[in-house]
Amino acid sequence: MPRSHGSEIDTLIQLLAKLPGLGPRSARRSALQLLKKRDSVMVPLANALIGVADKIQICDVCSNIDTHNPCHVCEDLRRDRKTVCVVEDVADLWALDRSETYRGLYHILGGTLSALDGIGPDDLNITSLLTRVESDGVEEVILALNATVDGQTTSHYLAERLAVLGVKITALAHGLPVGGELDYLDDGTLAAALRARGAVS
Amino acid sequence: MPRSHGSEIDTLIQLLAKLPGLGPRSARRSALQLLKKRDSVMVPLANALIGVADKIQICDVCSNIDTHNPCHVCEDLRRDRKTVCVVEDVADLWALDRSETYRGLYHILGGTLSALDGIGPDDLNITSLLTRVESDGVEEVILALNATVDGQTTSHYLAERLAVLGVKITALAHGLPVGGELDYLDDGTLAAALRARGAVS
Repeated sequence: MPRSHGSEIDTLIQLLAKLPGLGPRSARRSALQLLKKRDSVMVPLANALIGVADKIQICDVCSNIDTHNPCHVCEDLRRDRKTVCVVEDVADLWALDRSETYRGLYHILGGTLSALDGIGPDDLNITSLLTRVESDGVEEVILALNATVDGQTTSHYLAERLAVLGVKITALAHGLPVGGELDYLDDGTLAAALRARGAVS
Repeated sequence: MPRSHGSEIDTLIQLLAKLPGLGPRSARRSALQLLKKRDSVMVPLANALIGVADKIQICDVCSNIDTHNPCHVCEDLRRDRKTVCVVEDVADLWALDRSETYRGLYHILGGTLSALDGIGPDDLNITSLLTRVESDGVEEVILALNATVDGQTTSHYLAERLAVLGVKITALAHGLPVGGELDYLDDGTLAAALRARGAVS
């Protein structure tokens, strides 16, 4: 195959194509953009990557990925330390924190129980959650797992394990997404929204 | 605003969001992917960026962006050196070269003439093209500019300037895109395809 550019540029394109949301075509466009904006984007991006790569740590408390340990969430003294929200993944923590509704702490499970994938309780950060609830004076655990079969199975399992500790256990509400249209919703969501209906003030 | 991660990660997300095809949401997903795949993606990507950033050069002959000067295209002795394809941008060179149909050299204009944007002949690599055609024994110049108003205006202008040099001047054919459906084509393309119709062998 003839080449219109050096192999280093090929390597760059291949690495960019590994990012979610970038296919081969947009990876090429990105590479070209980087080549054209060497000083304003390419070099700063390289430095940012190196800076972060040097500092990545898993938080010992909640398993968040951050440049600090304990992470920025666990270190933040303005947060309510008596509430812990259990999520599957760091992405879920970021999503919940962006909503700016929740101001407590988090605990990242690192996945869900899955018979199919052979993931049992010992493969998730469950022991550390139980220890945390017992020793840190946690009063409420919010189970914020995905509304998938595996997520809900894991929720039930956690609720059982936590129940013996005498902590308040809650879960995210099911219902109509804000901006959602009834016509496009699946039956399960509609049924859940109906069952959980509330009085209109 | 409360923070769920360090400011270095914020910087990384903001820089990733500058890549074409990545919005704020996919930039966050990309950043998270990088954080999770530190050794397999993040560090290699950082190294690739630095490696390329150190070597980026504009080819003195054709204005291609590459890690060599002259670029890989101009250096490739297997290419037909008597044909030069004029394109607007490096992206066009990459696209044409990927098609593996053309095996000649290129010349990158760096844009098109545009009265609106105040881009005149002196802002484009036109003088270097004329010099190249005169002194390098070029026999055919293929005008492969975009089929936009500015692209076609530039094509006409170049054809006039090149005519006095006695070189063969050709342009890309207009017509039905491969896989295109008549019903979805604009009138201009259909008219061009009809005018340029050929005998079926």
